Amino acid sequence: MDKTHNYTLSAIYHRKSVRTYLPEKAISASEIDLLIRAGMAAPSGKDTRPWEIIVVNERAILDTLAQELPYAKMLKNAPVAVIVCGDETISSYWFLDCSAVTQNILLAAETLGLGAVWTAAYPYEDRMTAVAKQIGLPDNIKALSVIPIGYPGENKKHKDKYDKNKIHYNKW
Amino acid sequence: MDKTHNYTLSAIYHRKSVRTYLPEKAISASEIDLLIRAGMAAPSGKDTRPWEIIVVNERAILDTLAQELPYAKMLKNAPVAVIVCGDETISSYWFLDCSAVTQNILLAAETLGLGAVWTAAYPYEDRMTAVAKQIGLPDNIKALSVIPIGYPGENKKHKDKYDKNKIHYNKW
Repeated sequence: MDKTHNYTLSAIYHRKSVRTYLPEKAISASEIDLLIRAGMAAPSGKDTRPWEIIVVNERAILDTLAQELPYAKMLKNAPVAVIVCGDETISSYWFLDCSAVTQNILLAAETLGLGAVWTAAYPYEDRMTAVAKQIGLPDNIKALSVIPIGYPGENKKHKDKYDKNKIHYNKW
Repeated sequence: MDKTHNYTLSAIYHRKSVRTYLPEKAISASEIDLLIRAGMAAPSGKDTRPWEIIVVNERAILDTLAQELPYAKMLKNAPVAVIVCGDETISSYWFLDCSAVTQNILLAAETLGLGAVWTAAYPYEDRMTAVAKQIGLPDNIKALSVIPIGYPGENKKHKDKYDKNKIHYNKW
């Protein structure tokens, strides 16, 4: 490995929310597998692993979710979406673990040259209900995030969000 | 870059919770800066960036937190801890964004050869209060995670948590 450059830090720093995709360029099953493996490598409270992953690539479901979720209109042009869910009977704090799962998937997408964005289901009851209905979730399985994924259809730069004023040493 | 190997996926897959550190081996200011930059590169709902970062390297504070936090005894041997906090007046869902911040910091530690672990403050009122008291947090700033960080004092392997039974296609 080139010691002057850390690829992982670079992916973390350069990850951006990509909302435009090349709809005709499919994501392969092996790419999906790499993304899911990243998600499931997340830590969880007491190692309870409360996550469940739904991969959606049926056009009709993606289009319906695009209609029903106010901030996920880009699903209309995404070849696939990964929905990160949690089992509330396994952990009361499934949404924290599932946030780490979501972040891992976003970083994996970045490093694979894919575009993705975290759109929220939880904590919005109407969105969670819409997702649950479309994919037939049991009552105890709650949707945290709907992640549209595709090859980027825009050349977007990351934001520099580093802010020294938000760093404190030992005392506030 | 070696196209047969993806360093970022490798870091994501191999990250583990490290709870034993070399107490005499300090973490440099530039390493801390890389970790914080990773944290602040996280996404946030409506780009509100509700996070605040506290770096603790005063021995007395680390030792007191080790005493007061039931699952953070390893702070006793950590040269530094990063505490990820959120401003609840900026976002009601600061804990989701701050989970992504925490995960980024854990991955950055992994790729830098450091050991770290997510210990929970939120949602436990007693732990959040203990942290707030020690570092003098204002009422609106809530601690999500306390991350002890050091050079690993154990040679720990990651867990393989991939589970095909948790993957669903289009319908549950």
